[in-house]
Amino acid sequence: MKRNTIRIASIQLAQKATKAETYAHIRALVSTIPDGAADLLMLPEMWNGPYESRLFPTFAEPEDGPSRLFLSALAKERHVYLCGGSIAEREGDRVYNTAYVFDPEGTLIAKHRKMHLFDIDVAGGQRFFESDTLSPGNSVTVFPTVFCTVGLCICYDLRFPELARLTVDAGAKVLLVPAAFNMTTGPAHWELLFRARAVDNQIYTVGVAPARDPDASYQSWGHSIVCSPWGEVLMQMDEKEGVAVTELDLDRVEQVRGAVPVLKQRRTDVYRLELQP
Amino acid sequence: MKRNTIRIASIQLAQKATKAETYAHIRALVSTIPDGAADLLMLPEMWNGPYESRLFPTFAEPEDGPSRLFLSALAKERHVYLCGGSIAEREGDRVYNTAYVFDPEGTLIAKHRKMHLFDIDVAGGQRFFESDTLSPGNSVTVFPTVFCTVGLCICYDLRFPELARLTVDAGAKVLLVPAAFNMTTGPAHWELLFRARAVDNQIYTVGVAPARDPDASYQSWGHSIVCSPWGEVLMQMDEKEGVAVTELDLDRVEQVRGAVPVLKQRRTDVYRLELQP
Repeated sequence: MKRNTIRIASIQLAQKATKAETYAHIRALVSTIPDGAADLLMLPEMWNGPYESRLFPTFAEPEDGPSRLFLSALAKERHVYLCGGSIAEREGDRVYNTAYVFDPEGTLIAKHRKMHLFDIDVAGGQRFFESDTLSPGNSVTVFPTVFCTVGLCICYDLRFPELARLTVDAGAKVLLVPAAFNMTTGPAHWELLFRARAVDNQIYTVGVAPARDPDASYQSWGHSIVCSPWGEVLMQMDEKEGVAVTELDLDRVEQVRGAVPVLKQRRTDVYRLELQP
Repeated sequence: MKRNTIRIASIQLAQKATKAETYAHIRALVSTIPDGAADLLMLPEMWNGPYESRLFPTFAEPEDGPSRLFLSALAKERHVYLCGGSIAEREGDRVYNTAYVFDPEGTLIAKHRKMHLFDIDVAGGQRFFESDTLSPGNSVTVFPTVFCTVGLCICYDLRFPELARLTVDAGAKVLLVPAAFNMTTGPAHWELLFRARAVDNQIYTVGVAPARDPDASYQSWGHSIVCSPWGEVLMQMDEKEGVAVTELDLDRVEQVRGAVPVLKQRRTDVYRLELQP
């Protein structure tokens, strides 16, 4: 029988100097979660190397690389779903910002390649061009779990209301977003965007970010967050490393959709959002 | 030469017992704005009668009715643009929730009929069904001014990210929203939705609400608001009657769109939002 809650463990990770050290550190953090206390573990964006465009190709791995194998083994060991944040993925001569998801047997059940690359240049603020070294994905990603259908996108993807909407049209009741906002966009827009996507689509939104590292060239805002379908902030961290388990009541999605039925009230006779063939 | 600012006077109105008294009261409020101090005046949703579904047909007027004539005369007298909030409009046997806009000569230059009717039923909160007596409009509305192109929608329309997006695709840099959230949806979502539509579309959003009347069957949240294209709240009232003039720097729209070019970065090769034929 389907349960009506899903408990998500958000792991706001402080990355270590090498991949091997980071794997060990993740294991240590996960070991602080009691057995059976979480249904899905989630890591932040680009957790296995520095968030620097020029270094993405260096840290990139093929789909069967060591980070993928580490994630798969961890899901199986803990017998939980695992949204493995995102890492740089190499395929041929291209590199993607890719999120892998595993089921409790360690089987890869979903993969999202960041669709909207983070290219911004704010005067007096953050400048960053992912497209210097990354290629974009072209797919809207949802995956089934025993709890509900879950949507998946990465960081800058969240700025595009179309993508969240399409995951909901594909059945998502929860949207997972490995992300790494910065000291310009974080204070201005992080909480706002997670709350807005939640309210517009009447879903839970879950953002997991890296802990802030004062020595990194890219300063993460942190503030891993969970928002309800009514737009409440159910959990939000500060900038420091941490693990938090949040229980999401999935019946709440149907309650909100019943009370304020915006998804049904869309005027698809006037406008329509559609995937292109 | 086009100017790069537009000054908007938000009139958070306390309605009077009769239309004639309300006209006189609006004139009195508008007279507190110094000549030449505002470029556009804006009234709230359903300002000339009670916000009650069963009474909309009673207060409804044809397009050439007295409220329309009052608004046109006011725009001409003050030589300003006027977004006349919204009123119940009768055409044949149908009634619409309609916003009229006049230029400084008093000429009607735009008209928006609320496209998404407000039908909600929140357990322990607000219940309201506009569709008991109203028909919906079917058009996305923008209009030209000497300052910039302006978009227009009404209250519940704002819950649909598609509609704001379509006004922006039609050139809007400012989105006007006569509205009347209530004591359930106001605290939960009012500021969030105005900020979110502003950030997603990199436009100014302007919401004007009725002042709260403790004796009314529908309690308005008030809190008339102006948000910047970066999502800052530039002005927000409390629940009481008031007039506030806010200057919008239209160059800021281009600055934000240059820094974080989300409108250009949409993946229209993957998804597309389009008007239906």
